[in-house]
Amino acid sequence: MSTFFAELLGTMILILLGNGVVANVNLNKSKGKGGGWIVVATGWALAVAIPVYIFGPISGAHFNPAVTIANAAIGNFAWADVPMYIIAQMIGAIIGACLVFLHYLPHWKETEDKATKLACFATGPAIPSTIGNFISEFIGTFILVFALLGIGNTVMVDGLSPMVVGLVIWVIGLTLGGPTGYAINPARDLGPRIAHALLPIPGKGDSDWKYAWIPVVAPIAGGVVASLIFAAIF
Amino acid sequence: MSTFFAELLGTMILILLGNGVVANVNLNKSKGKGGGWIVVATGWALAVAIPVYIFGPISGAHFNPAVTIANAAIGNFAWADVPMYIIAQMIGAIIGACLVFLHYLPHWKETEDKATKLACFATGPAIPSTIGNFISEFIGTFILVFALLGIGNTVMVDGLSPMVVGLVIWVIGLTLGGPTGYAINPARDLGPRIAHALLPIPGKGDSDWKYAWIPVVAPIAGGVVASLIFAAIF
Amino acid sequence: MSTFFAELLGTMILILLGNGVVANVNLNKSKGKGGGWIVVATGWALAVAIPVYIFGPISGAHFNPAVTIANAAIGNFAWADVPMYIIAQMIGAIIGACLVFLHYLPHWKETEDKATKLACFATGPAIPSTIGNFISEFIGTFILVFALLGIGNTVMVDGLSPMVVGLVIWVIGLTLGGPTGYAINPARDLGPRIAHALLPIPGKGDSDWKYAWIPVVAPIAGGVVASLIFAAIF
Amino acid sequence: MSTFFAELLGTMILILLGNGVVANVNLNKSKGKGGGWIVVATGWALAVAIPVYIFGPISGAHFNPAVTIANAAIGNFAWADVPMYIIAQMIGAIIGACLVFLHYLPHWKETEDKATKLACFATGPAIPSTIGNFISEFIGTFILVFALLGIGNTVMVDGLSPMVVGLVIWVIGLTLGGPTGYAINPARDLGPRIAHALLPIPGKGDSDWKYAWIPVVAPIAGGVVASLIFAAIF
Repeated sequence: MSTFFAELLGTMILILLGNGVVANVNLNKSKGKGGGWIVVATGWALAVAIPVYIFGPISGAHFNPAVTIANAAIGNFAWADVPMYIIAQMIGAIIGACLVFLHYLPHWKETEDKATKLACFATGPAIPSTIGNFISEFIGTFILVFALLGIGNTVMVDGLSPMVVGLVIWVIGLTLGGPTGYAINPARDLGPRIAHALLPIPGKGDSDWKYAWIPVVAPIAGGVVASLIFAAIF
Repeated sequence: MSTFFAELLGTMILILLGNGVVANVNLNKSKGKGGGWIVVATGWALAVAIPVYIFGPISGAHFNPAVTIANAAIGNFAWADVPMYIIAQMIGAIIGACLVFLHYLPHWKETEDKATKLACFATGPAIPSTIGNFISEFIGTFILVFALLGIGNTVMVDGLSPMVVGLVIWVIGLTLGGPTGYAINPARDLGPRIAHALLPIPGKGDSDWKYAWIPVVAPIAGGVVASLIFAAIF
Repeated sequence: MSTFFAELLGTMILILLGNGVVANVNLNKSKGKGGGWIVVATGWALAVAIPVYIFGPISGAHFNPAVTIANAAIGNFAWADVPMYIIAQMIGAIIGACLVFLHYLPHWKETEDKATKLACFATGPAIPSTIGNFISEFIGTFILVFALLGIGNTVMVDGLSPMVVGLVIWVIGLTLGGPTGYAINPARDLGPRIAHALLPIPGKGDSDWKYAWIPVVAPIAGGVVASLIFAAIF
Repeated sequence: MSTFFAELLGTMILILLGNGVVANVNLNKSKGKGGGWIVVATGWALAVAIPVYIFGPISGAHFNPAVTIANAAIGNFAWADVPMYIIAQMIGAIIGACLVFLHYLPHWKETEDKATKLACFATGPAIPSTIGNFISEFIGTFILVFALLGIGNTVMVDGLSPMVVGLVIWVIGLTLGGPTGYAINPARDLGPRIAHALLPIPGKGDSDWKYAWIPVVAPIAGGVVASLIFAAIF
């Protein structure tokens, strides 16, 4: 399989599972409704870990333009391949969001709140604050990339590493997810936001495009700064 | 031990533990009552992982006709053995459901709601919708089989693989379980439904036979499509 | 270190942590109050796994007369050492319960309900039923011993096995803990019950001695039957 | 990288993530608000495990003066390096607390309760009791150091050990965290308390300095006693 297809399918599964857990916990009549933050954070952690198991050996399992660019910034990944990876990630994210729409098909019209429906696609700030939200996404992605590079440096027996990647996502969600819902990944946010704008979701509201740049720009900035600092000190 | 007996006992334990967690969280006066979705999903994940540890080396630990058929469809498993595996899984599932009945013996008459009691045996839709429910079971089992095949492809040290299988069940429950309660396994649903129909459960209702075909047909369809696609791309 | 001391210290830590989580979730003003079943079950799982890491290589980390007797019943453990192991487990359990009393010292007088205070020492039935409660403790310990023997049969890399033991405890608590609070261990129940009777707990009630035989006899019966069946089929 | 820098950065990340989870669960409008004790304890466990992965091979990943002193007390660590480690840990903890302040920037002024805001920095007793609180921090750190030494003695494949360290933190939080919020680490408590005193937190209260000595002295005492006993018996 090509790396393009691996990034596309991996990001697709990541979004299906990750946004799936948001839908499960938030949409009316869903059996997981009210499951709370532990369900959300655990679901997202595994939503990343499982496709890392499947596609890691093929593409490196970035699934995230911020990770791809941060690796390119320190010579871990060829700049020439960056656009191809990002396109695959974006397409995968959009398809994954469409699958969430299908998977929870009867639940959209049972859910009145427009913000709740948007939350099953894109992230949004708990308290709108350009500076505060930017800082949160910057710090969250800094920790993500710094920890992933650290784990990449660690000697590990076969099969353990994707689980540890899941632990990194788990801890970021549990501890740093509060202010913005931790996009920490431009494709994870922008792809499903595009899907939200295009899909015939019953009673949907707008896709909050004015916020959309923060979970794109801040993760890339945080990721690149993290990789540069990591490369400087290790 | 024969593979027949391994599949039977493994599926029996899987259902005892898996439907046990549903009973624990839902039956009146149970100490885990109100434990929520995290308890349900974690319980089911381990309900699968533990018998995989015990019986995996003997039978491959399918415990699921959809997994057995999906593997046969791509030549990973002999078609001639499929009926024997499915019979073992069905018998094991029925016995497991009877054990849940025994384990929670004093709690059935304390629980008035008939649907709650049925939920401790078979799955049911959050919102009845033939197309929607079929899609959910199809997608859930697609992810199950695709991920299991992917994990089977991964180089892993001894003893780690059943844990990763548990992670796959965990994430499916957390993220995709909302619309139908994720049967993703014909034996897991049909076996306990038969037990529900036969057992002298105090104040039980009907066994919702009109829904019963969906968690049988959709998982088989989703599993076979997943294995065919997996075989095509890997 | 002697095996006697290892069993004593291991069971002591097991009870300190295990009954500690019950206290944390139930005693008034405790910061974990209301944490729910996921906290209880996860706490108990790790309460077992951690001392298995520390003392496993010395004594085999039984920490449980039912496990010791079940192993003796199939020739895995010398009958001559059984009394010594059980004495160590009982002493450890009593000391562990005293440490829970000390650790939550200011919380006992803030908690009025006598049953809540007893629950931080010994288990009790959700619905009193001699037959039902006996069955639950029998089945729970059957699964415990059967799974431990199965895991003992599994090839595993160094350091993984205590974690898998923890998963077994986790799943039993999550799925089978509802009717009786899963003693599944005579020392775990009887030792702290003795401590409850002796300690100067403010406003304590009686120690429910009429129930005390069930979590002693049923786990031993369930464990022995499990080991005999395991030995017969493997 | 120097050991000084590793301890500083590791403790910084530990506090950012660990106090981050307290903020997430407690600050108004945070998306994880009300997530409960399972979120807190899981967050702290991973807040320790992840920097152990990154910095463990460099400095041994103490991140805790009680661990450093306890190791020195039994000759596992050079006394001459103790002050340097503690200084690094304290600086890291203070910076980490400042990062929590930044990460949750818009949430402080939405949260009225002064004690809630302090809890995102330093620990405090559920029930003020000098003896009771001292005992709790002593026992909690005793278990921490005893278990860490036990795990250090265990043969483990590469990459598993930091995960097991996380399990130790997890169980301590779940089971022993109720009375004092388990500082079990002088730097974890004193560093953020200093940050709380210095930072311009909107509507903050006092930093509860009269309690501050307990989470410094009791963890050191508990840790040293644990290491001496461990060295005596193993």
